[in-house]
Amino acid sequence: MSKELYQKYVEHSRKIGDVNAAIALMHWDQEVYIPKKSTGMRAQQISTLSGIAHELASSDEFGGMLNKLLAAEGLETKEARNVKLAQKAFMRRAKLSKEFIMKLSQTTARSFHAWQKAKQEKDFAIFAPLLEEMVELKKQQAETMGYEDHPYDALMEDYEPDEKVANLDVLFADVRKQLVQFVQEISAQPQVDDTFLKKYYHKDKQWDFGIDLLRKMGYDFDYGRQDIAAHPFTIDFGSEDVRVTTRINEHNIAEMIWSCVHEGGHALYEQGLPIENYGLPLGSAISLGIHESQSRLWENNVGRSHNFWKAHYGQLQEVFKDQLGDVDLDTFYRGINRVEPSLIRTGADELTYHFHVLIRYEIEKALVEGSIQVNDLPSVWNQKYKEYLNIDVPSDDLGVLQDVHWSHGSIGYFPTYSLGSFYAAQFYQQAKKDLPELESAIIAGNNAPMLDWLREKIHKHGRMFEAGELCTAITGEPLNFSYFMDYAREKYAAIYGLQTVTT
Amino acid sequence: MSKELYQKYVEHSRKIGDVNAAIALMHWDQEVYIPKKSTGMRAQQISTLSGIAHELASSDEFGGMLNKLLAAEGLETKEARNVKLAQKAFMRRAKLSKEFIMKLSQTTARSFHAWQKAKQEKDFAIFAPLLEEMVELKKQQAETMGYEDHPYDALMEDYEPDEKVANLDVLFADVRKQLVQFVQEISAQPQVDDTFLKKYYHKDKQWDFGIDLLRKMGYDFDYGRQDIAAHPFTIDFGSEDVRVTTRINEHNIAEMIWSCVHEGGHALYEQGLPIENYGLPLGSAISLGIHESQSRLWENNVGRSHNFWKAHYGQLQEVFKDQLGDVDLDTFYRGINRVEPSLIRTGADELTYHFHVLIRYEIEKALVEGSIQVNDLPSVWNQKYKEYLNIDVPSDDLGVLQDVHWSHGSIGYFPTYSLGSFYAAQFYQQAKKDLPELESAIIAGNNAPMLDWLREKIHKHGRMFEAGELCTAITGEPLNFSYFMDYAREKYAAIYGLQTVTT
Repeated sequence: MSKELYQKYVEHSRKIGDVNAAIALMHWDQEVYIPKKSTGMRAQQISTLSGIAHELASSDEFGGMLNKLLAAEGLETKEARNVKLAQKAFMRRAKLSKEFIMKLSQTTARSFHAWQKAKQEKDFAIFAPLLEEMVELKKQQAETMGYEDHPYDALMEDYEPDEKVANLDVLFADVRKQLVQFVQEISAQPQVDDTFLKKYYHKDKQWDFGIDLLRKMGYDFDYGRQDIAAHPFTIDFGSEDVRVTTRINEHNIAEMIWSCVHEGGHALYEQGLPIENYGLPLGSAISLGIHESQSRLWENNVGRSHNFWKAHYGQLQEVFKDQLGDVDLDTFYRGINRVEPSLIRTGADELTYHFHVLIRYEIEKALVEGSIQVNDLPSVWNQKYKEYLNIDVPSDDLGVLQDVHWSHGSIGYFPTYSLGSFYAAQFYQQAKKDLPELESAIIAGNNAPMLDWLREKIHKHGRMFEAGELCTAITGEPLNFSYFMDYAREKYAAIYGLQTVTT
Repeated sequence: MSKELYQKYVEHSRKIGDVNAAIALMHWDQEVYIPKKSTGMRAQQISTLSGIAHELASSDEFGGMLNKLLAAEGLETKEARNVKLAQKAFMRRAKLSKEFIMKLSQTTARSFHAWQKAKQEKDFAIFAPLLEEMVELKKQQAETMGYEDHPYDALMEDYEPDEKVANLDVLFADVRKQLVQFVQEISAQPQVDDTFLKKYYHKDKQWDFGIDLLRKMGYDFDYGRQDIAAHPFTIDFGSEDVRVTTRINEHNIAEMIWSCVHEGGHALYEQGLPIENYGLPLGSAISLGIHESQSRLWENNVGRSHNFWKAHYGQLQEVFKDQLGDVDLDTFYRGINRVEPSLIRTGADELTYHFHVLIRYEIEKALVEGSIQVNDLPSVWNQKYKEYLNIDVPSDDLGVLQDVHWSHGSIGYFPTYSLGSFYAAQFYQQAKKDLPELESAIIAGNNAPMLDWLREKIHKHGRMFEAGELCTAITGEPLNFSYFMDYAREKYAAIYGLQTVTT
């Protein structure tokens, strides 16, 4: 009886999964291949499909099914977990009307295009009215969803379940205190050279090298592909079709390399999710923070390590003889780890990166609280960049308009980037403990032990655990910022010739 | 009252249109960019979305709405036409169960992949069991839909409304009698040279030339794009996003040029459909025959004319100096119009092309009648190619497996290709009458008068008229094969040095 009902639940969920896959494909196409003037129709189409998905996911029939299953006996552990998470999501979803969802979807599409135009024309005013609409919708959403302490908590729930402003305030205070001091120590040292990264690198050769990097990480092109996008992203239509995008700057090879490795890390997580749970909670990622831990681990802990480039630098030199022939591995390694305050989050080094997130976190919280207004954003933004990074923002395209997220209505999303790095440091430390041969394998160009460990410890479980539970299960303790700080101190002390300080 | 109901009808229809656009995008992606092993998931996703579209299009609510509107007073002519066609489609659709539609969709996806594999491995046996399933489904469909004279009539209705076996039998008898004799006369003449088309033509230069040709025809890249596909096709997600595909053979430039012009012709029709009728019958094409008339008119009547190349041959020579520098316009013109029996339909000249269609028509009719079996197809196919074209089929990939259509369940589709050419000849003759300056404009490289005439006479009306009505409205008489025969005789008598015979 309950088995039969569970089967019905699975079928209904997969139907929703299929509609969501179609929506994801329309998004992918929109950012990769859509003709210039076809975006209006697409916005309407996405909106309609989102409405259908919402209708299916919030139907009384589905809710009744889930309530019955929640009370049912005889489900296996994983089945019960699927039902529990699905029912929780249903209850949250039930709070939002179909009209609200469609309005959000339409506003997102219009807002995205306004943002594109605003960024191109370096004019925040083009984006401002749409962003205002968006912020109002998100505040409305927070009130509808409910929260205990802070409306921002309600918004974060969609990206990082159970994460709270109360925790993040402490975490980011810690970050600022320790990282600021450490970056100041670094800044007092002679700067490392990275000018060789900014020579001319032909796009076709870059493209080929990036594809090869993805292969070497273990990304499976039989179930995925890479395309060019203005803002690189990873998207999936089920774990058997996981696509990445990259961008190529012919005057900075670093952009392509680390966007490939970063998105590749996301994609490996998605490709490793259990296909038998397609369309079900256990077939999906735990949270954006955990997702980001996968991309960051590959991007930084692996992809910016001396070990990794010991394996692959020879090939890069081979491809770009003119540019790198006279740059030795150690120089290259220091160059790719240059720490320096900068304007653009996605191009930031792995330390000052967290100041970028901090700024967005503070702004989002204030927007949601209503303590700043959308029209104030450019000046608030520029002030904070002066205060935390000590740099002047020359124009909005390099400042408040640089990220796509707000145009997508993703408020409460940015903190997950920092969480990702901190989880990554803690996971990587554990992997080294679990696998004494890990680093020698990486040096030998063999990334399989790393990937296998992630598959075994994280990917294959899907959403069987919450982020905190997973972290404790793998490393024996909850997320602890000191792993990131220790990693940073050890690595950058060596690069910048600092005395190692024990905390 | 009826205005309000009509508005509801429009909204519901557009919702279906949006789902169909998502399905179309999934198909496009499947044939252009999908990763090798991701096709299984896609088949399921398309099947689910097809089920949803069918559910929406055949709901009692929608049917009730249409019946009320059919009886309503006060609708404008175009509104009434939309309602009439929608109600007719509803009644047809109501005959097919949702289960049948989903089964057809799933079988199509599996069948498509079996066909791909079979073609690659030159082994019809791989495709046969799937095709058998498909033929059974189509026979079942014909019985369910009902017909007066022949089950094939019921299947053609989806592609060419009101077309009947009784008419086609007469038409194809005429075709065979007159064309066979004419092709025999041609074959008795010295053959024209086309070897220069088969020199080496670099794919990138071909690509650029093709893009430019599309622009010159008036195809709007702001609302469309071109990609590479094994079997070129045109697909739309509404008239504001109409995409074409082409294929490039570096050893035969003709393939790319005329696939571009052909698909471009289809795309111009779609781009010209009235966007205000998106999702409604009046926003769509009349029939596949009329659709094909647009592609054929551009491909043959314009694109293989001396006038057209008088305008563009200089540029082609410029791009391919080594290949065409010593080939003059007249030689080029004769070469691109070489008549010669051949194996592959899509590469056939515009005369023997209709023998390819004839063969498929005879086979499909016999399959539906049950007078031949799927397993007999390779031998029947090969016999007919011997009989009508006097050529031997060396392997199934060049024979019975060459076309994708049957794997898509498209039975009753092929005759529309010939209808298209015959309509095209009749339309083009009328355009020349209506626009005395037409040919001098084409010679001057200006294709706008041609496109404007098509937009005005055909595109902008959408499905306001049936194919026969349209033909009579434009040319003063129903489809008449003699226009094609006259065009063929005049053109090829000149090319092959025949005496013009008046019929």
